[in-house]
Amino acid sequence: MSSFLPKSIQDLVDEFSKLPSIGPKSAQRLAMHLLHSPEKRIQGLADAVNNLKKGIQFCGKCWNLSEDNLCKICVDGAREARQICVVEEILDVVALEKTGEFKGVYHVLHGALSPVDGIGPEHLKMAELLERIHQLKGEDALPSIEDENKEIEVILATNPGMEGETTALYLMKKLVPFDIKITRIARGLPVGGDLDYADEITLSRALQGRAQYN
Amino acid sequence: MSSFLPKSIQDLVDEFSKLPSIGPKSAQRLAMHLLHSPEKRIQGLADAVNNLKKGIQFCGKCWNLSEDNLCKICVDGAREARQICVVEEILDVVALEKTGEFKGVYHVLHGALSPVDGIGPEHLKMAELLERIHQLKGEDALPSIEDENKEIEVILATNPGMEGETTALYLMKKLVPFDIKITRIARGLPVGGDLDYADEITLSRALQGRAQYN
Repeated sequence: MSSFLPKSIQDLVDEFSKLPSIGPKSAQRLAMHLLHSPEKRIQGLADAVNNLKKGIQFCGKCWNLSEDNLCKICVDGAREARQICVVEEILDVVALEKTGEFKGVYHVLHGALSPVDGIGPEHLKMAELLERIHQLKGEDALPSIEDENKEIEVILATNPGMEGETTALYLMKKLVPFDIKITRIARGLPVGGDLDYADEITLSRALQGRAQYN
Repeated sequence: MSSFLPKSIQDLVDEFSKLPSIGPKSAQRLAMHLLHSPEKRIQGLADAVNNLKKGIQFCGKCWNLSEDNLCKICVDGAREARQICVVEEILDVVALEKTGEFKGVYHVLHGALSPVDGIGPEHLKMAELLERIHQLKGEDALPSIEDENKEIEVILATNPGMEGETTALYLMKKLVPFDIKITRIARGLPVGGDLDYADEITLSRALQGRAQYN
């Protein structure tokens, strides 16, 4: 685009432009901002990028990010290992954890079914989820298990869009044979939302999912 | 914010968050995007950040970015050295160069006057501009000069906002004693703009700056 900038700056602009939601103009501004920043800040960013993948792996159980074989949530004895919340992405785990509401564990699919983009079940951590539940059921059979009365629950928390719904439906069918509790997160009006402005699908979901008040 | 992410990722999120116009949510998405990117891309970004300031300096004449003592524009013999376009930022030079319209040279102030932010003339490359014009005038006095009839022109191309206007006005007063041509870029309706939607100040500027058509 602009051979007007020195090469080292243009290189950084090009790299920034490759990131999602950063256009060439923003990339230029970011590069200029860094150029006027102290050396320490620039070094900090370079190091952080460099170290990004160091010591990072996926949890062998839930496929969340982890610094060990198993993630902090999976090894936490206080979490209910028989309540598995299935999400699309790692950031969904972060979002749910921030609520402080959920005491179970997670399973990160790393995407959603999308025939258009050629993403099938084999590209997601679905077999891993089924295997995980298979093992949980196996533990049930052991007489030593403590809380054998506690039902296994899979909460399908994929996004409430086309692909997320397809993924939830697909998983539901796969999970039915396990004879466990399967739930889907509520879809309805967002808190602070306006009935007036809600689209029809959200509204009809909100009606279908209505809860008794008295 | 979130101790839910591994440290190396949180570090990068923190660094990204320090950049202008990138909030914590965007920073998280950028970090996640990079995490799923091939090693080569990550390395490319880290290197670009690292090399940003390498071999970069300011042009000793116009304070544009340069890989040498003088920038490409200043050493270009085809450019009219007696027509100086004064801009606030380096990116303004890039923007003007893209038009391919301007054949003169630049002077980058590196900011605009802003009493609120405590930015006075001493923080900008103003003394350098005056010195530069002083020298140009000195060359005029020499009998050897080729195009001595060509008038020196300073185009004040600071932004058409409060601070840019103040800066232009201040410079104008400082430049008057030099007995040179001083111009200000036109302020009016942007091309493709709608009279209807223009604010009053822009409209009144557009009227004041009207050009004769016949």
